[in-house]
Amino acid sequence: MTAPRVAGLRLATAAAGIRYRDRDDLLLMALPVGATTAAVFTRNAFCAAPVLVARAHLQAIAPRWLLVNSGNANAGTGARGRADAEGICAALAAAGGGPPESVLPFSTGVIGEYLPVERVTAALPGLLAGLAEDHWAAAARAIMTTDTVPKLVTQTFMLDGQTATVAGIAKGAGMIRPDMATMLAFLATDAAVAPDLLDACLRGAVADSFNAISIDGDTSTNDACVLIATGGLGQPPITAPGPAATALQAALDAVCSALATAIVRDGEGATKLVAIEIEEARAGEEARQVADAIAHSPLVKTALFAADPNWGRILAAVGRAGVAGLDIDGVRIWLDDCLIVSGGGRNPGYTEAQGQAVMAQDTFRIRVALGRGTATARVLTCDLSYDYVRINAEYRT
Amino acid sequence: MTAPRVAGLRLATAAAGIRYRDRDDLLLMALPVGATTAAVFTRNAFCAAPVLVARAHLQAIAPRWLLVNSGNANAGTGARGRADAEGICAALAAAGGGPPESVLPFSTGVIGEYLPVERVTAALPGLLAGLAEDHWAAAARAIMTTDTVPKLVTQTFMLDGQTATVAGIAKGAGMIRPDMATMLAFLATDAAVAPDLLDACLRGAVADSFNAISIDGDTSTNDACVLIATGGLGQPPITAPGPAATALQAALDAVCSALATAIVRDGEGATKLVAIEIEEARAGEEARQVADAIAHSPLVKTALFAADPNWGRILAAVGRAGVAGLDIDGVRIWLDDCLIVSGGGRNPGYTEAQGQAVMAQDTFRIRVALGRGTATARVLTCDLSYDYVRINAEYRT
Repeated sequence: MTAPRVAGLRLATAAAGIRYRDRDDLLLMALPVGATTAAVFTRNAFCAAPVLVARAHLQAIAPRWLLVNSGNANAGTGARGRADAEGICAALAAAGGGPPESVLPFSTGVIGEYLPVERVTAALPGLLAGLAEDHWAAAARAIMTTDTVPKLVTQTFMLDGQTATVAGIAKGAGMIRPDMATMLAFLATDAAVAPDLLDACLRGAVADSFNAISIDGDTSTNDACVLIATGGLGQPPITAPGPAATALQAALDAVCSALATAIVRDGEGATKLVAIEIEEARAGEEARQVADAIAHSPLVKTALFAADPNWGRILAAVGRAGVAGLDIDGVRIWLDDCLIVSGGGRNPGYTEAQGQAVMAQDTFRIRVALGRGTATARVLTCDLSYDYVRINAEYRT
Repeated sequence: MTAPRVAGLRLATAAAGIRYRDRDDLLLMALPVGATTAAVFTRNAFCAAPVLVARAHLQAIAPRWLLVNSGNANAGTGARGRADAEGICAALAAAGGGPPESVLPFSTGVIGEYLPVERVTAALPGLLAGLAEDHWAAAARAIMTTDTVPKLVTQTFMLDGQTATVAGIAKGAGMIRPDMATMLAFLATDAAVAPDLLDACLRGAVADSFNAISIDGDTSTNDACVLIATGGLGQPPITAPGPAATALQAALDAVCSALATAIVRDGEGATKLVAIEIEEARAGEEARQVADAIAHSPLVKTALFAADPNWGRILAAVGRAGVAGLDIDGVRIWLDDCLIVSGGGRNPGYTEAQGQAVMAQDTFRIRVALGRGTATARVLTCDLSYDYVRINAEYRT
């Protein structure tokens, strides 16, 4: 893959030694004048300091700088943590130009430890000197925590006869549920897009991607997803729905879906990528409820790890999802295209060998028809393995 | 401990080879004429066949027999499973006396396999011949599945100048959450108690014991808790609230709490028993919400396993519990009596060594004050270990 670029957006990475040795742990993104930015943040009442600061700065002024560190979440650090984040913004603004509010700070890593501010500020001159448009791959590596692979996706689309680009990087890994560890995603396009439309595009893309990996709303202390439109392509701004906005949305959806899938595939200890697809629900909310109940069941997840087609655990999760008046005898369940449950129990034609063949794969679908309506939902999840326990029992110690 | 007895209630166990070898897997309880019985069942929409049958039989007639098997849940077995359960009731009634509706069947074990009915019915004559009042310890062993220790608790109380008894056995183990595996509990007293009062006593005792281990309402396919009042003591029935009912309730509460604690302590792979205590909530529901969010967080549970005082994970769980308008800066958290979080972060006087000393214990408390009101909640939970994954990944295979 040739190095992606998003015209106008420059990136630089550096090793500040915040927590990791011998790897980059800082990412600086420099936005051109006139760029527009949209962002969504964690809904956790326990917000990290950088989230509070970034949210406030974004409301005050158009961002010129994004500064991301890995290894330390600057969360649970109280007033000092907030002052630390503000101080870093001020230092970057002084060195790079603009007011402190033009900097959005992001942090991911361990909770409850103070950020080593001096190490971050000491790295700023080098970062500013190293900015270039072709540093996306290094950027994807610099934001990793327990991720085992960097996550970078690009997609092109046609805009006014030119080839436009959407590029994105993400980190997750501490997941199984996005409420648990930090998910950060940074997306950029060289299209020019009006702020309100950009915001709508971002929210649309996030709903079926980052917010459909296990649970929606159960976010961590630091979760954030940012979308920058640089306008580097030089076309007139997209300001309203229409063919251009539709093309942008499609490209953005593709990038977000690919990144979200990569996050689940790289979930802590994950060995399986499983799509939970619910259909024939009365409403989308009810479908999502059932998908979440399956996706969060430790018993289902350990069965996925064992490649054990234990349909009883899936059916039990459906049964406790809280769907009022659910007739369990009307529920059908498939593993990929293999019907395993019908009429309240094992499908008569189903053999365990069929289910095991599906579950032996790295990736497969659990499809559940509720027999109540036409609404659907889809959630991606992974299994619960020994390594999940190891990673999370050893993370700090 | 001398063998407990509850006058009038006879028990017998047998090895039917349903799933296990070389151990009893059937329990028969014979109730005297005039006994009253109360029961609560799973709220899962996906009910096992024996739950459907027991619930119907209990509404039809006063039970004379309880028949429990371990090793097979007879769940997800559709019409055949229900016919199997009915057939076993009919066989027992024919051999032991009374109509089929006088039998309540209970099953626990693997979901989705048909019950080996012939092995159960073949064991009935031996069970009937072996009935005796002093078989409680054998009964506690016969209902075990992945439990590592039998759970039997007795408590006495004074009633009309006589010593009355409450005895109970339970099995859990496949838990961490009672929605996951079957929890069965059988309780008996030799007091005579009117049916409505007995029902109220049972519901009162269950609320703060079996329904306060991790989650309420998220029950399995087979969960059941039965309370029998034999009247064997010969005193006039307790029919209304008053000193006698209060004494009974206290004894029943003590037995249920001890059994519920034993279930959590013996949770699959559990190495820690942790009480989550929430206080200063605006309402009990909100307190329970926070307790459940902590008790169900895989990240908190793996930290408990690692004896890692990772207060950031606890605070993050509080933050995502869905309490509207929660001021995270007003939250305080203690490990036993050690204040670890105040003012939105680490308590200034707290050292990691203090937290580690608390968490090195087998049993401790996580106490959270929300700073919003006076309501409280308490939930017992355990840690998430390698063995939880091993047990649940290997259970069927």
